[in-house]
Amino acid sequence: QTLLLLPGDGIGPEVTAAAQRIAELVAPDVTIESALVGGAAIDASDVPLTDETLDRAKRADAVLLGAVGGPKWADVDRDKRPEMGLLGLRKGLDVFANLRPAYCFEALVDASSLKRERIEGLDLMIVRELTSGVYFGQPRGIDTDENGVRRGYDTSVYTAPEIERVTRVAFEIARGRDGRVCSVEKSNVMESGLFWRQEVTALHKTFGEGVELSHMLADACAMELVRNPKQFDVILADNLFGDLLSDEAAMLTGSIGMLPSASLGIEGTPGLFEPVHGSAPDIAGQGLANPCAAILSLEMALRWSLGRPDAADRVMKAVADALKSGAKTRDLGGDMSTTAMTDAIIDCL
Amino acid sequence: QTLLLLPGDGIGPEVTAAAQRIAELVAPDVTIESALVGGAAIDASDVPLTDETLDRAKRADAVLLGAVGGPKWADVDRDKRPEMGLLGLRKGLDVFANLRPAYCFEALVDASSLKRERIEGLDLMIVRELTSGVYFGQPRGIDTDENGVRRGYDTSVYTAPEIERVTRVAFEIARGRDGRVCSVEKSNVMESGLFWRQEVTALHKTFGEGVELSHMLADACAMELVRNPKQFDVILADNLFGDLLSDEAAMLTGSIGMLPSASLGIEGTPGLFEPVHGSAPDIAGQGLANPCAAILSLEMALRWSLGRPDAADRVMKAVADALKSGAKTRDLGGDMSTTAMTDAIIDCL
Ligand SMILES: CC(C)[C@H](C(=O)O)[C@@H](O)C(=O)O
Ligand SMILES: CC(C)[C@H](C(=O)O)[C@@H](O)C(=O)O
Repeated sequence: QTLLLLPGDGIGPEVTAAAQRIAELVAPDVTIESALVGGAAIDASDVPLTDETLDRAKRADAVLLGAVGGPKWADVDRDKRPEMGLLGLRKGLDVFANLRPAYCFEALVDASSLKRERIEGLDLMIVRELTSGVYFGQPRGIDTDENGVRRGYDTSVYTAPEIERVTRVAFEIARGRDGRVCSVEKSNVMESGLFWRQEVTALHKTFGEGVELSHMLADACAMELVRNPKQFDVILADNLFGDLLSDEAAMLTGSIGMLPSASLGIEGTPGLFEPVHGSAPDIAGQGLANPCAAILSLEMALRWSLGRPDAADRVMKAVADALKSGAKTRDLGGDMSTTAMTDAIIDCL
Repeated sequence: QTLLLLPGDGIGPEVTAAAQRIAELVAPDVTIESALVGGAAIDASDVPLTDETLDRAKRADAVLLGAVGGPKWADVDRDKRPEMGLLGLRKGLDVFANLRPAYCFEALVDASSLKRERIEGLDLMIVRELTSGVYFGQPRGIDTDENGVRRGYDTSVYTAPEIERVTRVAFEIARGRDGRVCSVEKSNVMESGLFWRQEVTALHKTFGEGVELSHMLADACAMELVRNPKQFDVILADNLFGDLLSDEAAMLTGSIGMLPSASLGIEGTPGLFEPVHGSAPDIAGQGLANPCAAILSLEMALRWSLGRPDAADRVMKAVADALKSGAKTRDLGGDMSTTAMTDAIIDCL
């Protein structure tokens, strides 16, 4: 099996190096390769994702990405933004189901903005559609309309098959958990939202066995995540709402430096695994980044793409144990470096 | 001066009745009229907003709306949904700037999900564009595309003049506060977001004197509102992001039953004032609703449309004093009825 590392920009290389150390210990037979993406790829070859890198990603069994972007590449033209490398990779690998867990390690409950009783034991999973919606919809652009007025526009669009495949994943995941899916949209004001709701409702009738389905408007969900996040099991959302709600949910758990994500395509294709956090240019290169999100992204890669649940369990337990023993990077209120934190996790393996 | 009450559905009539009692005391010379909107209007005349009601709203000096919607009207066809009455009113009055404050009464700090130190003293204002964006963009619909695939789609569009007028309001409001505006979009993935950012940046150069402008991606903002809401002064957002972020911000303060909103058009036209909360069908008709959001919406009407800042100050102080004295409805952890809570506020006037 092959794991392709795409360290990317900012703290990306630091945290993927930490994950690589863990991978070499828990899955020594996996071949690890690496390639450039994002700003690093722009610097080397003028595009944020080369065809060759995309091909290598397609041939790998799993892809672990660090983070992309940074002020250095903010001004270049749109197609050459580091983010376009990430979007190109998602679309190119067709990883339509983005799994973003939000769980709270016991040792970190106090780092949360929320009161202990509201967050302790939180364990929810956001399933976000990742390759359609307003992120990719056509037409889009900035131009002048027929009355000579300048405008910017995008199209938010979902087709029935796009909704079906991600909904199936949400149902499947719920069956391995508490069996409850809450589908989120703005069906009261958006046609794509109404269509989403109707389709999910119909799909539930056909293959929703064992799954309890509810619906919530996206604004209400943004609110309920603050009021009582523990009410949720699986949240199913489109690309845009999933983006906002998963960041909000991640932050509930205390630090954005902790949480991983998995992006999955159809069976047999490689998954893309990445921390929820960004490239954090402010602390890049200083050895201060929290490696946990990248290490937990490796955990998801072991579980979802590499078929190694035992190794995944080992990694998950080692992270929890290291945190319990008091190991903490700066974002968690401690003072450990990226390397020291990784050492602490390795000690617990 | 005339204040048009549109009680609407669910708890709407209960909370607007409470606000009316306060209005009669602090502004006895204002003529109060009322009309139907939402489900109540559907029941009476088969549409959620009659032309006659819209005309009366246009001729009033301010419009105070309770809430619209409820399970009773969930199945009717789209144009006859109660929500369409609200959207029709916003569009018809052309109230493009929706002001949603999020402040936390000292007496309610403990009701918040957030730890005391993160929320105490919170005072931010969200300025949300209210009459454009994906809520109204064309084309939109549910149909079958050229390949025979069913789909739902919407258009997210902003023109330069639409961005300009709401940005001017945000700058103006910031000048009366701490002078900081944070403009929120997804310029990294949306063309309308990129256009929004470019326009706001240019407008700031032309008439942003005394205002410090920053930009934040919407997902980061959803996260920062949880991490450290006190960092914000004024948040400027489009219709859709403003919808989610203002609900999230409102809930930070402990109860969605507390917060008001003002929707303003150009100078000299009536503003539309409404609680942020919905029609709460589960407690409707039981006298349990918290009247504070409606009373504080009246406070905003007195301040922004009726030119009575002194009366507004009186109302604001009475609400704070009543809360301080321990008056609380059920949503705040107390046991007062709507009427008892209103009495307590009147006692403090
Ligand atoms: C970097 C950006 C394009 C991306 C997104 O909006 O999807 C990020 O916010 C994420 O959630 O992974
Ligand atoms: C009722 C609904 C149409 C409305 C909206 O989405 O704007 C509501 O959520 C609000 O924020 O006032």
